[in-house]
Amino acid sequence: MTQNIYDNEDFFQGYSRLPRSVGGLDAAPEWQVLRALLPDLKGLRVLDLGCGFGWFCRWVREQGAAAVLGIDVSEKMLARAAEATPDPEIAYTRADMERLDLPPASFDVAYSSLALHYVEKLDRLMSIVYRSLAPGGRLVFSVEHPIFTAPSAPGWSTNSSGRKIWPVDNYLDEGPRKTDWLTKGVIKQHRTLATYINMLVRIGFAISRIEEWGPTPEQIAATPAWADERQRPPFLLIAARR
Amino acid sequence: MTQNIYDNEDFFQGYSRLPRSVGGLDAAPEWQVLRALLPDLKGLRVLDLGCGFGWFCRWVREQGAAAVLGIDVSEKMLARAAEATPDPEIAYTRADMERLDLPPASFDVAYSSLALHYVEKLDRLMSIVYRSLAPGGRLVFSVEHPIFTAPSAPGWSTNSSGRKIWPVDNYLDEGPRKTDWLTKGVIKQHRTLATYINMLVRIGFAISRIEEWGPTPEQIAATPAWADERQRPPFLLIAARR
Repeated sequence: MTQNIYDNEDFFQGYSRLPRSVGGLDAAPEWQVLRALLPDLKGLRVLDLGCGFGWFCRWVREQGAAAVLGIDVSEKMLARAAEATPDPEIAYTRADMERLDLPPASFDVAYSSLALHYVEKLDRLMSIVYRSLAPGGRLVFSVEHPIFTAPSAPGWSTNSSGRKIWPVDNYLDEGPRKTDWLTKGVIKQHRTLATYINMLVRIGFAISRIEEWGPTPEQIAATPAWADERQRPPFLLIAARR
Repeated sequence: MTQNIYDNEDFFQGYSRLPRSVGGLDAAPEWQVLRALLPDLKGLRVLDLGCGFGWFCRWVREQGAAAVLGIDVSEKMLARAAEATPDPEIAYTRADMERLDLPPASFDVAYSSLALHYVEKLDRLMSIVYRSLAPGGRLVFSVEHPIFTAPSAPGWSTNSSGRKIWPVDNYLDEGPRKTDWLTKGVIKQHRTLATYINMLVRIGFAISRIEEWGPTPEQIAATPAWADERQRPPFLLIAARR
């Protein structure tokens, strides 16, 4: 099973205080770009892989989606999601994405935000997701960008001209990366961009669009600390079609 | 017009001495991976954008292609290509890829090796190439990888643990990069991976496969100096279909 770091008390406390946990979708800087990859949701059946506190599931219903299923491995997050969701068309299910099964052709949109880089057997999961989509169905997800996850020692440093640089190594060597984020020993799976794209194509998806997210000048003006994120993208967003 | 660096005497002399110039396709470490992206060429009409000394054009005919058109901007390279090519089904044409035009539906395969990162108006060129392909036609090309072209100060450095790192900055800021390679002031266009993919999809191509090339263990055993190339891929290879 994927490391269930979200139920680690330290991690959960830290995560609960992040802007995106408190402020929801609009507090996530990449949200507007991710949102633009989604189709008109009116009447659609939506799956959210790694739904966390349920912000996206509730938003989707506000957009007129027919029904939403939120999947997460974290008991703590699902408990809080359920509390905040008095809507019978939103269902939350606790499941490990390494072993998840889904009924065929039962969703029009599969979505995931910053969760799939925790999954070891992503190929298996994406095959299940493909089968669970109706023909023409969309897959839209974000993960940490491979340039972001590659390094053996992630973190900014300064080159001889005083510029911030991101120290890439190990890019082609895929596999687990252990980092300290909110707590010690968080395990994420590093995959190359080619692996993401080729996996989806091999399963049968057609690639619609990818985004390597970085902040806009307006976002940097509002939050100057984000400026460095233009040196290398922190997030990779992919839209594909069954 | 694209900087015609290949007709610069220093550059040409340096380029002429590179293993891939002397030894042809098999001397290029990425060739086997690029080759694997090509379809069976028997009877096909092939376009080579940036054909250089004509190694690929001649190889394509050995594979049974019906005809090949090699395009290049360098007079010096085309002169040498023509000398080495006593084959009436291989034509070489001098043209600037910024202004190239091609007849519609006249090729089955469009190919380019390490040339398109010199092109400023790549969007325009790719639209012309799309139109020049017969329905179902393939596009296969390599360029310098965006991680390779991004840095303001490209070159390996060593981190505090003694590991070689590639200093990424400026990744999201696309445009010309001036480097000293074989001669001073060689201008290449840095584009993000998203820009390559989205450009092709927007034009109408379906992405078939991408490769972020790095050496195999066997290649490293034979040429130890290549080991660093696994830290970050030097080349991006893309296969798409009209």
